[in-house]
Amino acid sequence: MEHTNTTKWPILKYDGSELFEMDDEIAAEFPLTLKLDGEEFATIVCSPSDLQELVIGFLASEGVIRTAGQVKSLIIHEDTGFAYVGLEHKSSMGIEHYTKRVIGSCCGKSRQFYFHNDRQTAKTVMTRTRITPEQCIRLILELQDSSADFRSTGGVHNAAIGTARGLLIVRTDIGRHNALDKLFGYCLLHRLRTSDKVIAFSGRLSSEVVLKAAKIGCGILLSKSAPTDLALRLADDLGITCVGFIRGGEMNVYTHRERIDFGNGLTAGN
Amino acid sequence: MEHTNTTKWPILKYDGSELFEMDDEIAAEFPLTLKLDGEEFATIVCSPSDLQELVIGFLASEGVIRTAGQVKSLIIHEDTGFAYVGLEHKSSMGIEHYTKRVIGSCCGKSRQFYFHNDRQTAKTVMTRTRITPEQCIRLILELQDSSADFRSTGGVHNAAIGTARGLLIVRTDIGRHNALDKLFGYCLLHRLRTSDKVIAFSGRLSSEVVLKAAKIGCGILLSKSAPTDLALRLADDLGITCVGFIRGGEMNVYTHRERIDFGNGLTAGN
Repeated sequence: MEHTNTTKWPILKYDGSELFEMDDEIAAEFPLTLKLDGEEFATIVCSPSDLQELVIGFLASEGVIRTAGQVKSLIIHEDTGFAYVGLEHKSSMGIEHYTKRVIGSCCGKSRQFYFHNDRQTAKTVMTRTRITPEQCIRLILELQDSSADFRSTGGVHNAAIGTARGLLIVRTDIGRHNALDKLFGYCLLHRLRTSDKVIAFSGRLSSEVVLKAAKIGCGILLSKSAPTDLALRLADDLGITCVGFIRGGEMNVYTHRERIDFGNGLTAGN
Repeated sequence: MEHTNTTKWPILKYDGSELFEMDDEIAAEFPLTLKLDGEEFATIVCSPSDLQELVIGFLASEGVIRTAGQVKSLIIHEDTGFAYVGLEHKSSMGIEHYTKRVIGSCCGKSRQFYFHNDRQTAKTVMTRTRITPEQCIRLILELQDSSADFRSTGGVHNAAIGTARGLLIVRTDIGRHNALDKLFGYCLLHRLRTSDKVIAFSGRLSSEVVLKAAKIGCGILLSKSAPTDLALRLADDLGITCVGFIRGGEMNVYTHRERIDFGNGLTAGN
């Protein structure tokens, strides 16, 4: 069985004037836990294709092996998300340095992480704050305009917190999660009430981004980019409204659409 | 002292017909190591702005603190890259779960990582392989055309290995480093000679991407996106030719320009 890299998700598409119910194709986010000679080694959050290559390449990249021949056996159970690796010789790299490291997908979190830590910090967001499509579009434009570093280098992510009427602060980082942690730090340092706020983000809506929004306590998350399936499942659970692909006057509403105020009878049910 | 998020780097710009020497503005990648009550806790690779917010937000995000008041003292030494945190109460989260975790910037690697592990696996690339600007542009177009998942979901990275004349294989993942690990795994499983090959990548050229290219053993790294300063310093060290912003028939050559064959007297020196 080979998982596919994409799945379907029901969305509400807004094209600037009308609303459509449709299925959108979403990138899959798959946590794969590596067991090395029986010991848990790392969890890689990935797209579920070419997993044998991924395991071999990851182990070589981490310096555990130098050739594919040093892997004596490799069994991948895609249904449970485990890869069992037997090595020819015990690694000289000192596996204790690595044990239970979590390798994000540049976005992803492992199940382990979610259960260990995020469960205590990422709480369901309960807020009656609402936003119109025009406000979503305006906030993303405001985010793009405010990003001088991005214009000059093309290499950073931006995250902002604001109300439906405008952004309050924008933070910038080469790391997607760092930009959000800077926002979170600002909110804590200034004791900012977050439940009535909105986060606008320049990057992809991954599971980690959704978890950070829940930790910060914002119920509305906007992006010009795409979400992943794991992000949407978490957003659904955690009570977060995800709006993606906000560009060219259009947008896709993925989860908790009850917070989007389409006005004039266009208010969507849940 | 506040570091800026960008630095200058001398580049060779090719606009489709002519070459220009100029300085380009590059996103900075800064490793910040957190010491929690004297114990090394994590290294965050980040943009060096708003570091106090970053530390507070990161600790809250990881569940170490709930309010900013739980941090009794915070001293950031930007010149050495250390942040010293004193907590009001010893964390109930069990710091042993976290010790010496490295938090990538979605790309970055810490100094610790570089010294520990990458030094043994990322070797200087020595190759006489050369490539023309037209070939660089063609390979990036080929990469974009081959990416069905990206077209349908807008949420994945693509990495490909090939010769100057065309791509051999393309691998896709939501994680930038996973896509490269899949390539690496393919090369090892098929015992592919890599020193005469080229890597084309859809994402930003971060330090981690450059380190992976060195581990794979490719001396030429192409991207339509921007590099970071740490990536370029590593590429300079490791003998890798970085070409970025390959779009609209233009490109920027950042490092080891001796491998770019401009033809007709346009061959650049090193």
